[in-house]
Amino acid sequence: MKKYYFDHVATNPLHPVVLESMMPFFREEFGNPLSVYEYGMNAKNAIESARGQVAALIHAKPAEIIFTASGAEANNFALRGIALARQNEGKHVLVSRMEHHSVLNAARFLEKSGFTVTYLPVDKQGFVDPDTVKKMITKETTLISVTHASSEVGTIEPIREIVKVAKEHNIMVHTDAVATTGNIPVDVMDLGIDLLSMAAHQFYGPKGAAALYVKQGTRIVPLIYGGIQESGRRAGTENVPAIVGMGKAAEMAAAELQARIDYLMPLRDRLIDTMANVERVYLTGDRHKRLPGHASFCVEYIEGEAMLLLLAAKGILSASGSACSSKALKASPVLLSMGIPSGLAQGSIVFSLGMDNTPEDIGYLMTEFPAVIKRLREISPYAQGWGDKEEGGSCTAKK
Amino acid sequence: MKKYYFDHVATNPLHPVVLESMMPFFREEFGNPLSVYEYGMNAKNAIESARGQVAALIHAKPAEIIFTASGAEANNFALRGIALARQNEGKHVLVSRMEHHSVLNAARFLEKSGFTVTYLPVDKQGFVDPDTVKKMITKETTLISVTHASSEVGTIEPIREIVKVAKEHNIMVHTDAVATTGNIPVDVMDLGIDLLSMAAHQFYGPKGAAALYVKQGTRIVPLIYGGIQESGRRAGTENVPAIVGMGKAAEMAAAELQARIDYLMPLRDRLIDTMANVERVYLTGDRHKRLPGHASFCVEYIEGEAMLLLLAAKGILSASGSACSSKALKASPVLLSMGIPSGLAQGSIVFSLGMDNTPEDIGYLMTEFPAVIKRLREISPYAQGWGDKEEGGSCTAKK
Repeated sequence: MKKYYFDHVATNPLHPVVLESMMPFFREEFGNPLSVYEYGMNAKNAIESARGQVAALIHAKPAEIIFTASGAEANNFALRGIALARQNEGKHVLVSRMEHHSVLNAARFLEKSGFTVTYLPVDKQGFVDPDTVKKMITKETTLISVTHASSEVGTIEPIREIVKVAKEHNIMVHTDAVATTGNIPVDVMDLGIDLLSMAAHQFYGPKGAAALYVKQGTRIVPLIYGGIQESGRRAGTENVPAIVGMGKAAEMAAAELQARIDYLMPLRDRLIDTMANVERVYLTGDRHKRLPGHASFCVEYIEGEAMLLLLAAKGILSASGSACSSKALKASPVLLSMGIPSGLAQGSIVFSLGMDNTPEDIGYLMTEFPAVIKRLREISPYAQGWGDKEEGGSCTAKK
Repeated sequence: MKKYYFDHVATNPLHPVVLESMMPFFREEFGNPLSVYEYGMNAKNAIESARGQVAALIHAKPAEIIFTASGAEANNFALRGIALARQNEGKHVLVSRMEHHSVLNAARFLEKSGFTVTYLPVDKQGFVDPDTVKKMITKETTLISVTHASSEVGTIEPIREIVKVAKEHNIMVHTDAVATTGNIPVDVMDLGIDLLSMAAHQFYGPKGAAALYVKQGTRIVPLIYGGIQESGRRAGTENVPAIVGMGKAAEMAAAELQARIDYLMPLRDRLIDTMANVERVYLTGDRHKRLPGHASFCVEYIEGEAMLLLLAAKGILSASGSACSSKALKASPVLLSMGIPSGLAQGSIVFSLGMDNTPEDIGYLMTEFPAVIKRLREISPYAQGWGDKEEGGSCTAKK
């Protein structure tokens, strides 16, 4: 059966050109970048070239890019590395409720380690309000972490405005840009950000390569100690092929960014507009300030897992909540933080489109998805007599 | 010019069969292992299959294997994860002076975090004495970390005996087995070890895949927080192709282990015996209890970097000290801890052989290496009138 892959926030297929760029480093160029001879120098040069490509994608300097193995590692590194480096100035960190588990759970670790963490509320579209940030800042605050865009609801946060507030108080700002980098313009100079996480497999690069941008002059405590790799800030033999692939994927994303957005956004809008006409299906996240290929909904009286499986049986591959929690089967904390009732949040579904999706794919989805909902409601005990119930949703795009 | 690669402790070439096993996961099987549909399940199954292969290599249960991105990450995870998990029982850690930077620097981080670390001395062959371990244990000791074999001098440590001492005091033992796993028999049941680090690229697997063995029932605090990957103990989207490759490399290593040892050990012995006849070249590490393909020396009156470069000019690729410090150009702390004088330690050279080396390669090395030493001594100011000097070495195999 033909597969329709609509789960690009979970991971992207690797671009064949990117894979091609990696292959020599699985074969003849297998050296350790720290070795002084030719194999080592070739590997080292390849990494530095990739560093330049990744830096260029976000308007950073190459020395500001520290390669890691995952976005989760970059997030942990940022939160713990800055909190520890600045602990003599204060032990308070602000984190939004829209964050990925890797930020939230790193924040919880900080709490266990004697730091205070305040969790920033969000509005019904999932926006963090810079004025709320301002109110929650204390004299102890050293770091604020707000995602650039939640992979669950697609809402793009007002990072620039949050940075402005933070800078008035000498507070550093980290943003988890794993969902945005390579998918929308990300400019660290324009954002004014101090730290930014990204992951190659979110923009058609390989798994196993990610990076943390750390603004020049920022002191950060390593998460992984050891050798002198990454200027002593992140140890471990470099995953050369993956880093090379990340560089190539970054270069391609930079060149094709606007074309990709122009391709995906109309597909996304068609999908959202069609779904808005299906009974008791609610868009989650903001209608306009959202990731170009991202369409997320809550479907009333339906359990997300059942929806996923029935869609998969039709070849439609999608997610309910974030990939990292999709097997946990709990209502998403992100959706709950937006004021979506727990029952409705259980019916969460995310379609995230990519360059491999054709307009015909979207057409198929738009036909099949309402049919699946209809069928599930016919067999769902929750849906019996639903007309008598209160509407459970507080989402933005109700019918 | 033909290259003779004698730096397998820095990294190994990837076995073509291993690469072949990885390729589907760069192409059609690109799913995120946490996704519930077929792509996700295929990726998840591939990881679990690799977990079984890695577990089998070291006689562990699959659930005892936690995948990481590097040996350095596994080492940091082990030290910090156990020290934190047991901090209510005590805050003292024992670490040998033979350790890799990733263990030593993780230990230094623990010191900064309020733990006490005692560094275990070693003898002239680089052995940790279990009786010394016994004497250095305090009521506060919760963890001992001793490398299975140093990649710098090849000496294989008496882990089983150290574990015996530790178990009398309810202390956990971690061993950095990055240099040994896949190269000599490593059996966690036989060793009685609680935690063991390994890295795929040390046994013809890919960079970017490594693992920490954690004995069943052991509580460990994560290093990287986030999603539910690796049973919640190590977050981050899994590097599926690399993990698959690690599994395949582990399976091959298990099948071919004795054949590899039987191939490498005579080559190593020929090399060591020949070098022992070169004037003022001293073997470092133990003559017999050492890694099968590992031959390390100190060359008096010669600076390691110059030796590396001149050898590289002849196509001979080798290392001075560990790869992770080879660009730091300081005398190796490992060699100094063995009582080797600083000047002599500067003349350190390591030849580490692999399955891609032919007997002819070794023949070439045995001819060219003495010639390079001779040439360097002719131009070295330190070597002038050396006959008048005291012997600087305290190594084991002097001429």
